[in-house]
Amino acid sequence: MPVTSIASSKPDSSQSTVVGERDVHAEKWIKLVQVEYTDPLGKRRTWDAVRRTTTKRDSEADAVCVFATLKRAGAEDEVLLVRQFRPACGTETIELPAGLIDDGESAETSALRELKEECGYVGVVRGKTPAVVLSPGLSDESVVMVEVDVDADAEENKNVSQALEGSEFITVIRCPKSELLSALDAFSASGVRVFAGLYTVAWALARENL
Amino acid sequence: MPVTSIASSKPDSSQSTVVGERDVHAEKWIKLVQVEYTDPLGKRRTWDAVRRTTTKRDSEADAVCVFATLKRAGAEDEVLLVRQFRPACGTETIELPAGLIDDGESAETSALRELKEECGYVGVVRGKTPAVVLSPGLSDESVVMVEVDVDADAEENKNVSQALEGSEFITVIRCPKSELLSALDAFSASGVRVFAGLYTVAWALARENL
Repeated sequence: MPVTSIASSKPDSSQSTVVGERDVHAEKWIKLVQVEYTDPLGKRRTWDAVRRTTTKRDSEADAVCVFATLKRAGAEDEVLLVRQFRPACGTETIELPAGLIDDGESAETSALRELKEECGYVGVVRGKTPAVVLSPGLSDESVVMVEVDVDADAEENKNVSQALEGSEFITVIRCPKSELLSALDAFSASGVRVFAGLYTVAWALARENL
Repeated sequence: MPVTSIASSKPDSSQSTVVGERDVHAEKWIKLVQVEYTDPLGKRRTWDAVRRTTTKRDSEADAVCVFATLKRAGAEDEVLLVRQFRPACGTETIELPAGLIDDGESAETSALRELKEECGYVGVVRGKTPAVVLSPGLSDESVVMVEVDVDADAEENKNVSQALEGSEFITVIRCPKSELLSALDAFSASGVRVFAGLYTVAWALARENL
């Protein structure tokens, strides 16, 4: 059964092009820009957008999220989550371990570094997604989700310790895989905000008939 | 097996509080703000953040994404996707049908309205997620994902037509559910950017042993 495009009532969006972009206001980490583009009919239009000032042209994405599974002989697999206060949200959040990709770093290297820094664990990369966009109406901000296995029985993972920066206060949570969705629902109900890309994974995993 | 918090090497982030927020620069749709907050040690810190100017205090989220399943007797279920040019990304994207929640609207009403406007289909709500945050380091922007069933054999869904605004050029794609991940990978490989919350659903659905 093929993937089907239903003919639109309008011209195809592949005819659109960016004509230019100007900085409207820049701060240290993020800036507002105005994108000028042509629509498929050739009309010039503008769009307000956000850019991270840290985006690197040669990098595959802005950031990585780490979907790390903690494996231990005779026990259920656990997913590693992080709880932290997010000033941009005004609340604590539950997210996957994550961070910006450093200059020259691959997504895989970045993921293993962030996992070690935020959670203390050493892992092995099992796969990754392409770069996907977090909020396409607002920003080109992109992320690669990296799947990592952590052998909790290995010597190096027995007495783990975080290596946090001065401004970072992160609590690590181990959540049994079968309880991921109910745990995220409980956090949401208590006012802690859950990262969309984490919630949707839990949601899809729990719904066999989705 | 319980959800376990591993004691952090630092104080708990629940001690953090927002002290204030000032507008740094506002455009029509989005603005830059600086959030002032105290960390768990009581130290004052600041954070650059983005706000949508359209956020409504009494609304459950900024926007909805619609995970709509097209059902037809004797055929495989299909997921409805939309392809459009996104100026903020500088490229075409593949996303779920989506849009901002109107004043006084519930997420369910908004989802059915957006599905009808963008894709032409009439559906029935089957469930929804809590409000989840799209990019918690950058913004408090939140979204509810609403699950909708579409009976493609119903009279009202036989000759569908879009109701797009003048600036919208959206192509509707019907993707067999079993091909969702491979279709998104193919789009990514061709330079079209996929929305993270959609990709992660496809990724989780396709990986029984995740």
